[in-house]
Amino acid sequence: MSAIKYELIKTCKQTGARLGRVHTPHGSFETPVFMPVGTLATVKTMSPEDIKQMGANILLSNTYHLWLRPGHDIVQEAGGLHKFMNWDGAILTDSGGFQVFSLSEFRKIEEEGVHFRNHLNGDKLFLSPEKAMEIQNALGSDIMMAFDECPPYPAEYEYMKKSVERTSRWAERCLAAHKRPEDQGLFGIVQGGEYEELRRQSAKDLVSLDFPGYAIGGLSVGEPKDVMNRVLDFTTPHLPADKPRYLMGVGSPDSLIDGAMRGVDMFDCVLPTRIARNGTLMTSEGRLVVKNAKYARDFGPLDENCDCYTCKNYSRAYIRHLLHCNETFGIRLTTYHNLHFLIKLMENVRQAIREDRLGDFREEFFEQYGFNRPDAKNF
Amino acid sequence: MSAIKYELIKTCKQTGARLGRVHTPHGSFETPVFMPVGTLATVKTMSPEDIKQMGANILLSNTYHLWLRPGHDIVQEAGGLHKFMNWDGAILTDSGGFQVFSLSEFRKIEEEGVHFRNHLNGDKLFLSPEKAMEIQNALGSDIMMAFDECPPYPAEYEYMKKSVERTSRWAERCLAAHKRPEDQGLFGIVQGGEYEELRRQSAKDLVSLDFPGYAIGGLSVGEPKDVMNRVLDFTTPHLPADKPRYLMGVGSPDSLIDGAMRGVDMFDCVLPTRIARNGTLMTSEGRLVVKNAKYARDFGPLDENCDCYTCKNYSRAYIRHLLHCNETFGIRLTTYHNLHFLIKLMENVRQAIREDRLGDFREEFFEQYGFNRPDAKNF
Repeated sequence: MSAIKYELIKTCKQTGARLGRVHTPHGSFETPVFMPVGTLATVKTMSPEDIKQMGANILLSNTYHLWLRPGHDIVQEAGGLHKFMNWDGAILTDSGGFQVFSLSEFRKIEEEGVHFRNHLNGDKLFLSPEKAMEIQNALGSDIMMAFDECPPYPAEYEYMKKSVERTSRWAERCLAAHKRPEDQGLFGIVQGGEYEELRRQSAKDLVSLDFPGYAIGGLSVGEPKDVMNRVLDFTTPHLPADKPRYLMGVGSPDSLIDGAMRGVDMFDCVLPTRIARNGTLMTSEGRLVVKNAKYARDFGPLDENCDCYTCKNYSRAYIRHLLHCNETFGIRLTTYHNLHFLIKLMENVRQAIREDRLGDFREEFFEQYGFNRPDAKNF
Repeated sequence: MSAIKYELIKTCKQTGARLGRVHTPHGSFETPVFMPVGTLATVKTMSPEDIKQMGANILLSNTYHLWLRPGHDIVQEAGGLHKFMNWDGAILTDSGGFQVFSLSEFRKIEEEGVHFRNHLNGDKLFLSPEKAMEIQNALGSDIMMAFDECPPYPAEYEYMKKSVERTSRWAERCLAAHKRPEDQGLFGIVQGGEYEELRRQSAKDLVSLDFPGYAIGGLSVGEPKDVMNRVLDFTTPHLPADKPRYLMGVGSPDSLIDGAMRGVDMFDCVLPTRIARNGTLMTSEGRLVVKNAKYARDFGPLDENCDCYTCKNYSRAYIRHLLHCNETFGIRLTTYHNLHFLIKLMENVRQAIREDRLGDFREEFFEQYGFNRPDAKNF
């Protein structure tokens, strides 16, 4: 029996978006869902209680980073990642594949795996499907990801074809190496860049291996938004309706809605936390850069329409002051707000699916947020 | 009627230490008390809820720093410091005098006040008794401090004598300039270095002005601990029994106990928060440097005998990992623990006074903490 189960609650008649529920060994969560990212076993500046309070029941952590620091053996000795970081909700870990391709140097990709030098001290390392499973089994995440190759965007068709085939072979090796299928659900990752034929082939290969869930990888890597939407349009129909679908690395409000409309259930991204540290906020009226001088004497909340801890208790003037003084409590407040914003957005998306009006919701949201304005500063 | 009232509950028969209660416009607190420092209208990394949860009912903030950033006018427009930083407990502000003498450059002390260049951009500034009152009245703290001269340690007798006389004249000007005596209590600051005669003169001058409380300044500036204790021994007897006594800038556990034994009621210091940011902890068994390699696989709490949020939920191994990765949640956890440690220590000091056994408590604490060991690494 798989550790992960997906329950389809209903489909939006207006858009085809799915309302569902994912059950894990550490509780369940409704989908579509946005998962906060806790790269190094901590969502930067947040406590687990903060994350719970804002309504998140699943977070993501990074295999590559935890492998290097503190080491998966230490996390395992601690009793696993949940205990190590004091989080009793669900955890998804990626495979390390993306970081190997984006952070490390001197990569050499072979059939066996990838040789590279790590981004901290340049030490030689080797990551393979088997190693990625070993690390994630030690971490004990509820949802694990298969080790895939993440080609750059754009990539030639011939290169991408070979890469997709290798990713399929690696997925099979991951399944074979996965030691704890009853405790941890392993998701396959569909690759194929912008090529419909390759996405279809990748999906077909992986679905034949019968994973308890499927990710769509290789998007949000620099391609235009319409390319992302087009790829989703021709990829999700090849994924089984009774399994969750996870779009990796996507977290801008417009893309979350557009992804949900194309049948995606799960999303993660460092965007809300990263821009928060720089003082950039997502608000119901669009992007707000709270460090700007015009907020020095603005005693209103970051977002008039927000009921989060930050907006209930603190002013733009105070938060601006903290950020200008490099006081980390300022980053706590902006991080909390941005994560709450996306979690609340997904609550609204789920409600709109319930009411068969996600298309209308999209129009209203884009209008208010300013995504429809030609001068809109998106993320 | 003064904004601040002190209620003497009892005196320890073994030591003469005082158990009391200070009433302010924002609630009351028992003494002896340790006050966390929120330099820039935030106790670094902590939320107001964190501070409340650990049992603090008063915190300190710095006039000099808030004057420069964001400016006292902005804090006043926000509705005062309490509202600006979302803290409904009591607040004490210092006068800026100490920072002018420790942080700024090109000081020129005149009878009117002090000319100096600020530590951020070198701008010329002028601080005087009247200006210090104006700023603190704008901030709206419950307890304000008179503007004093803080001579270096050691200082010649003749210099110190002149300085003490000026500080007394400045204290009188502060009283005259203080615009909100019904909302904010103004404390005088006794100076005089290590000279008994000057401390007595300073106390006499200030007591004749009838402040609602008195601080002892010019200690914890580099002098040996026995000098501090000796100065307290011959200073506190000259302060009225019905007013609170505040020893400025003192926060090492041994000095808190030794100060309480000499009749001090209030203490503040950046020590617990500053060393926490570097990974140094105060524990019931002494100083602990959690970044050390030996804690990499130590899954016990920072302090076996501590029931704080950090110790209940996180291991040394996890906290070490966070600090090594520069994750600010690690500093949140160590800051919380150190502040809780001192607040709990003062709770225990108050209990010992109630039981007329603060002398015994001191011996037990010093023994367990290691202050009696010749190799003890104190703060």
